[in-house]
Amino acid sequence: MTSSTTHDGPTMTIYDFPVGPYPTRVRIAVAEKNLQMKTRFELVDLYKGQHKTPEFIAHKNYSGTLPVLELADGTLIAECTAITQYLDTLDGAPSLTGSTPLEQGVIHMMSKRAEIELLDAISVYFHHGTPGLGPMVELYQNPEWGFRQRDKALRGMHYFDTVLQRQPFIAGEKFSMADITVIGGLVFAAIVNLDIPPECGALISWYERMKKRESVATQPAFLD
Amino acid sequence: MTSSTTHDGPTMTIYDFPVGPYPTRVRIAVAEKNLQMKTRFELVDLYKGQHKTPEFIAHKNYSGTLPVLELADGTLIAECTAITQYLDTLDGAPSLTGSTPLEQGVIHMMSKRAEIELLDAISVYFHHGTPGLGPMVELYQNPEWGFRQRDKALRGMHYFDTVLQRQPFIAGEKFSMADITVIGGLVFAAIVNLDIPPECGALISWYERMKKRESVATQPAFLD
Repeated sequence: MTSSTTHDGPTMTIYDFPVGPYPTRVRIAVAEKNLQMKTRFELVDLYKGQHKTPEFIAHKNYSGTLPVLELADGTLIAECTAITQYLDTLDGAPSLTGSTPLEQGVIHMMSKRAEIELLDAISVYFHHGTPGLGPMVELYQNPEWGFRQRDKALRGMHYFDTVLQRQPFIAGEKFSMADITVIGGLVFAAIVNLDIPPECGALISWYERMKKRESVATQPAFLD
Repeated sequence: MTSSTTHDGPTMTIYDFPVGPYPTRVRIAVAEKNLQMKTRFELVDLYKGQHKTPEFIAHKNYSGTLPVLELADGTLIAECTAITQYLDTLDGAPSLTGSTPLEQGVIHMMSKRAEIELLDAISVYFHHGTPGLGPMVELYQNPEWGFRQRDKALRGMHYFDTVLQRQPFIAGEKFSMADITVIGGLVFAAIVNLDIPPECGALISWYERMKKRESVATQPAFLD
C-alpha cells in the first residue's frame, strides 16, 4: 500500500500565470521541494483580468492576485510567502524558510524586505508608471506614485548588492525563500526594462549564479 | 546551574514606539509568549523622525521602520512577521504562527492579507492623506494615493467581518498572528479616526473580545 506510486498524481492546484514574477516565486519553490508531480498549474490570464473577476475574488483570492494554491479539500492559500511556508514544511524538512528560530526570523525579514524594497515596488511601478496590464485591467493609475516606487526599487538593488558583498545568499550562507523573492524582483525588473545598475557587481554575479540553478533555469520566465 | 534565575534579565532589545500600531503587534506577541522578562524596549521617537536617520537606517533597519528586534549578539530582525516567527518558535511550541504546514500557510496568508487590505493601507493613508508624522518627517506625500488606500481599508473591514461571521478568529479556530495583525490595523484605524462601519457586527464583537485579552489590554495603545 505504502509503496504504490501508480495512483499518485497532482493533489494541489496552483492558479498561475507562468511568466509572472510572483507565480515564478512559487514555481521555484515547487521545484526546490520536488513537488512538481504533486501540483497542477491552472492558467489565469492576467492580461485578460481573470484575476480581477468577481468570481475569482469571491472564490479564490480576495486580494485578486496570483498565485493561489488550492488543496484537494478546497482549502485556499494565497500569498507567496504563505504558500512557500506551506510547501516547505510539508516534508518536515524545511530548506527554504529556515529550521531554527533565528534562520526563520532572518529569512522572513529578508524576504519581506525584498518585497518592500524591490519586488512590490516594481509591481507598483508596472501598474502605475507604465501601461501595465492594459486599459481594460488598469482602471486606476497614479503615475507619480509609480515613478517613486521605481526609484525605490533602484535603491533596493544597491542595498541588496551591499548584502551580497558580505554573504553568498540574501539571508546568509544558504539559499532560501529570500533569494527567491529577490529573483522575483529581478524577473519583474526585466519586464519593465529596469536594468541592474552596472556598479552592483555582487548582485549581478549572484543573479547569474541563481539563473543556473535548475529550479530557476527551468521556469518559463527564463526560457525566452 | 540550570535552575538559577537570579542572573536572568533582558537578552533582547526591541526598538519601539509604545503606542505605534506595528510595535503593538510585536508587544502583543511578546506578552502572548511570556517573554516580557527577556526583552527591554528602547524608545525610537517616530514624531522626531528617529527611525529615518542615516544611523538608524544604516545600523538598525534599512527600511526605516519600527519595530526592530536586536539579539544579544547584535543580530537584527526587522518586520513584525519575522520577529513574531522568531519569538514564537523560540520555545519549540509555536502558538501564534501555526504548528502544522496547513496552519502555518493559512496564518501567514491571513496575516499578510490583513497587512495588505487593512494595516498597510491605513498606514499609507496616515502618511499620505493626513498630516501623518508632521512636515519634518513626511517629506513627500501623495494624498490621492492615501485616500485610495483609506477606501481600500474600509473594504478590508467588511472583508474581515465576513471572515469572522463564519469563524471565531481571523485564521480559523485559534488565536494567531493573523488576529494580532488585524488588531494592529484597528489600532491604526483609531489613530486616523476611521471607525469600523456599524454594519460590521462580527468584526466589532471580535475586537471587543480581543481588547479583553490580557496580552492586548495591557498595551499602551489601549491604556488611554
